[in-house]
Amino acid sequence: MSMDAENSNIVVIGGVACGPKAASRARRRDPHANITLIERGKELSYAGCGLPYYVGGAVSDISNLRKTTFDVIRDEQYFRSVKNIDVQLQTEAVNINRANRTIAARSIATGIIKEILYDQLVLAMGSTPFIPPIEGISQKGVYCLHVPEDAVQIREKIEKGEADRAVIIGAGLIGLELVESFFNHAVDVTVLELADAVLPSCLDPDMAEFLKNEVVREGVEIYTGQRIIRIDMEDGTARVVTQDRSFPADMVIVAAGNRPNVGLAREAGLRIGETGAISVNLRMQTSDPNIYAGGDCVECCDLVSGRMIYAPLGSTANKHGRIIGDNITGGCEEFGGVVGTMIFKVLNLTVAKTGLTEQDARACGFRVATSLTPCLDHVHFYPGGKFLMIKIIAEQESGRFLGAQIIGPGDAAKRVDVLAAALQNQMTLRDIANLDLGYSPPYSHAMECVIQAANHARNRIDGLAHVMNADQVQQKLLQEDLLLLDVREQKEAESNPIFCEAVKNIPLTSLRYRLDEIPKNKPIVCCCAQGTRSYEACLILQANHFDSVYYLDGGLRIWRSFFRDKKECYS
Amino acid sequence: MSMDAENSNIVVIGGVACGPKAASRARRRDPHANITLIERGKELSYAGCGLPYYVGGAVSDISNLRKTTFDVIRDEQYFRSVKNIDVQLQTEAVNINRANRTIAARSIATGIIKEILYDQLVLAMGSTPFIPPIEGISQKGVYCLHVPEDAVQIREKIEKGEADRAVIIGAGLIGLELVESFFNHAVDVTVLELADAVLPSCLDPDMAEFLKNEVVREGVEIYTGQRIIRIDMEDGTARVVTQDRSFPADMVIVAAGNRPNVGLAREAGLRIGETGAISVNLRMQTSDPNIYAGGDCVECCDLVSGRMIYAPLGSTANKHGRIIGDNITGGCEEFGGVVGTMIFKVLNLTVAKTGLTEQDARACGFRVATSLTPCLDHVHFYPGGKFLMIKIIAEQESGRFLGAQIIGPGDAAKRVDVLAAALQNQMTLRDIANLDLGYSPPYSHAMECVIQAANHARNRIDGLAHVMNADQVQQKLLQEDLLLLDVREQKEAESNPIFCEAVKNIPLTSLRYRLDEIPKNKPIVCCCAQGTRSYEACLILQANHFDSVYYLDGGLRIWRSFFRDKKECYS
Repeated sequence: MSMDAENSNIVVIGGVACGPKAASRARRRDPHANITLIERGKELSYAGCGLPYYVGGAVSDISNLRKTTFDVIRDEQYFRSVKNIDVQLQTEAVNINRANRTIAARSIATGIIKEILYDQLVLAMGSTPFIPPIEGISQKGVYCLHVPEDAVQIREKIEKGEADRAVIIGAGLIGLELVESFFNHAVDVTVLELADAVLPSCLDPDMAEFLKNEVVREGVEIYTGQRIIRIDMEDGTARVVTQDRSFPADMVIVAAGNRPNVGLAREAGLRIGETGAISVNLRMQTSDPNIYAGGDCVECCDLVSGRMIYAPLGSTANKHGRIIGDNITGGCEEFGGVVGTMIFKVLNLTVAKTGLTEQDARACGFRVATSLTPCLDHVHFYPGGKFLMIKIIAEQESGRFLGAQIIGPGDAAKRVDVLAAALQNQMTLRDIANLDLGYSPPYSHAMECVIQAANHARNRIDGLAHVMNADQVQQKLLQEDLLLLDVREQKEAESNPIFCEAVKNIPLTSLRYRLDEIPKNKPIVCCCAQGTRSYEACLILQANHFDSVYYLDGGLRIWRSFFRDKKECYS
Repeated sequence: MSMDAENSNIVVIGGVACGPKAASRARRRDPHANITLIERGKELSYAGCGLPYYVGGAVSDISNLRKTTFDVIRDEQYFRSVKNIDVQLQTEAVNINRANRTIAARSIATGIIKEILYDQLVLAMGSTPFIPPIEGISQKGVYCLHVPEDAVQIREKIEKGEADRAVIIGAGLIGLELVESFFNHAVDVTVLELADAVLPSCLDPDMAEFLKNEVVREGVEIYTGQRIIRIDMEDGTARVVTQDRSFPADMVIVAAGNRPNVGLAREAGLRIGETGAISVNLRMQTSDPNIYAGGDCVECCDLVSGRMIYAPLGSTANKHGRIIGDNITGGCEEFGGVVGTMIFKVLNLTVAKTGLTEQDARACGFRVATSLTPCLDHVHFYPGGKFLMIKIIAEQESGRFLGAQIIGPGDAAKRVDVLAAALQNQMTLRDIANLDLGYSPPYSHAMECVIQAANHARNRIDGLAHVMNADQVQQKLLQEDLLLLDVREQKEAESNPIFCEAVKNIPLTSLRYRLDEIPKNKPIVCCCAQGTRSYEACLILQANHFDSVYYLDGGLRIWRSFFRDKKECYS
């Protein structure tokens, strides 16, 4: 399928995800091309996303991350024998000569530089961990988790019993994945985050607070708003000093995000985007049409906001690789962009997000409506249902769905993927509410969770539901006379009381008959476990001429999370 | 929000799913309407889909199917006190007088008929089990599973030890759900199906065969192509006689599908569709604009084929109810249709389907491409991955995605919901391949299962992958000289051999060096566990001028299923 009569020369720089995928796909489509893949590291085609699971022990052997499903290691020999791809490890591309269509590649072992001719060049150089400019951060004993060697070193230290206390710098995705890795080994973990909340680029403050409290409850220490001043090291013990305290640690892990490797591209005069990553067109071509780029070194379009973003992910890198493999062998494939989906596991929780956060959406100029839906992941009468908290973000006027955040022990993976598909198709909340999703008691609800969540947001937009969030309720409680109307059944209210003077319990099932017990001269915030009953209670009160009636968004589960360390509490 | 100055009279006929939902939604939007709900049965608002789980024991108490999440039974009193809805049980609508806008309702207890005035009438009469015209089918000891009483009777008989052997007539969704119910009680189960395969309206023969074999392996007996001639009953033991044998049973369950309850609507002169169910417009109005209908008594549009179908499901009924509740209180909501999604659990398997089957699609005139993808539901290096078989159906020319079937112990629920969303948005395989789905090792693959499956089908459409299905291979083996080239590693081939003379093992990893061992004068079918290696092997052979090369679609897992009781077997 090569376009040329002569065999084309394909050179791929970078051997982790996008590179091997592009090379393999090119081979499938063109049996005759000369395909060379060069990689700076000692290993290629490993599952970088599996590193935290090697540290934590779920993956027993590091080489499993390089194995195929049929238990063969994807090494140079494998690429040679199966795919007829020439792999050169520990070889670094030091220069691209676009005029001559050559790259200069230097052997890290010998220092010898050789030239390699290309017809099509693929840049898949990946990214490098960002190391914040902190005094003492480059010392021995401070780790990153980026390549298999890092994971091996960290686990070795734990297994030798040399790491009773770990400090993780950064409460992003990798930082929180590592919480579980250390937790599995009974290593005490402390997470320090510069921002005021965990996962600041993925979660809104309400959901971040919910997540933080759920993780802290398991015995993990998380401190947000921590500006790290320096890392001291003494007798193998580190001390991470922040603006207001210091944290001792046997091991410090820096997980402060990644930066794209663009040096080679920049020196070659290729266009770099405003995000700092390589700019490519829909066909994954750089500003030089004979040079393609993909994976963690390129930027991509956020399909929800229309903005260019840097969102390095293994799933995206693989898609890039396949598309590049097509296009360098005469195909014509395009990569439109991403919708910002991410998912990870921390302890018993799944944390997932797709699209824009509420904060993102406001920053993009959207007028925003939201809803918080606490729910079980399948019908309550079938055993084994697990909790999920779903936040939905939509455009107020149009009802266009903009994003979601889902956290809980329940099946968040299904819901986030459905909502990712909804975003990719620019669905409205109404469209989501009419999705024909599979229903059977072991898996879902007659009204599936995401449909419930979408309908909650629609009720808000339609003016049917008047909510107050936990933060607003707390503020109001301090400022004015407010009635917290607990509409749960009496036995629930007694076994899980709300510790607040302003609370009064009238179950929804008797509310219509007890309206005269409720004062008309103060605002009323109805609350219940999940929000369903308090919504109904609001409607009853409104119909009976109570003027200032709201219900607690997200129900008492959010409330409990919010007021955990505060006076007004719900146990 | 009522459009009238006076309070409107809303009458709802039918109290299971759509009816109570419509009434409740109407109340939320209109606090002043007079809302009456009449129901023929003794109970209302129960989860009919939960009945098999009561029979099987997962649901301990039948009343749980009528409880809210907060443990209150949804009875007349509940609807009165919480929703101010007047519920009349054991009351049957016997006539609609459209000119006067009244219905005649008869008390089943007293026989007294009264007239009820309506401004807006909602028909939600549901369906009735279809009882095939078989001699002896109406005897005592032959059951249906339709209302809570049925489930109570069946379970009582099992718990009394009076049902050691059950015969289920019909291998549809409810029939197969009941397999698990009986299995849980160690009741021997035999399923008899008239069609040549299980789930004939939901699965293609290849996937039906796969499912059947997986269930049969657990000790359940399933006989397809069974025309039942009569049911004999003697001393409490039944004997189900088919054209070629007879089956003794302590209990016979008829699960041969449902028919919509349309008598009342037909007598009132409302339009009935060609499917036999009530015809409604997008707003869920019948041919009389003051009469709405929803749930199991109406037909709906299949959004993939554009045809009207009868597809009664609790999830659809609830959506109908909400939309009707909006429209009878001045709203303007539409129900576009369904994409034919279904899911259920049988033993350790999830069975899911969305869109058209291959057979459906061909019958609708589509030129069809398919793929079979056996896979784990998350990356192989993370523990606990479970098997799934995914069949994809697409239009050959456009690549438009038309449907999928997913079976296995793995997480089929997530995949079917994502693909249902894809269908609702008329996505192509290319669109699916570019979905930004959540990736993390515990949940998925860098290339998610549905993306892999879509790409397999694309490879077929693009002429890159030449497959033969298990059926074709079996035919060919009988007719001509064929080489089955097993490209698994030697240890795999030895521990899980293919019992077939025509087989030769050359692992993919050494294939390029052993081409001279392969004869050029016969067709070659490559095979491996999952299809990935045999696909690569095909490409290598093609590039080396082997002319007639294919690989086994669906891998050896399908092969094993297909040849279970046949000569050519794979253990």
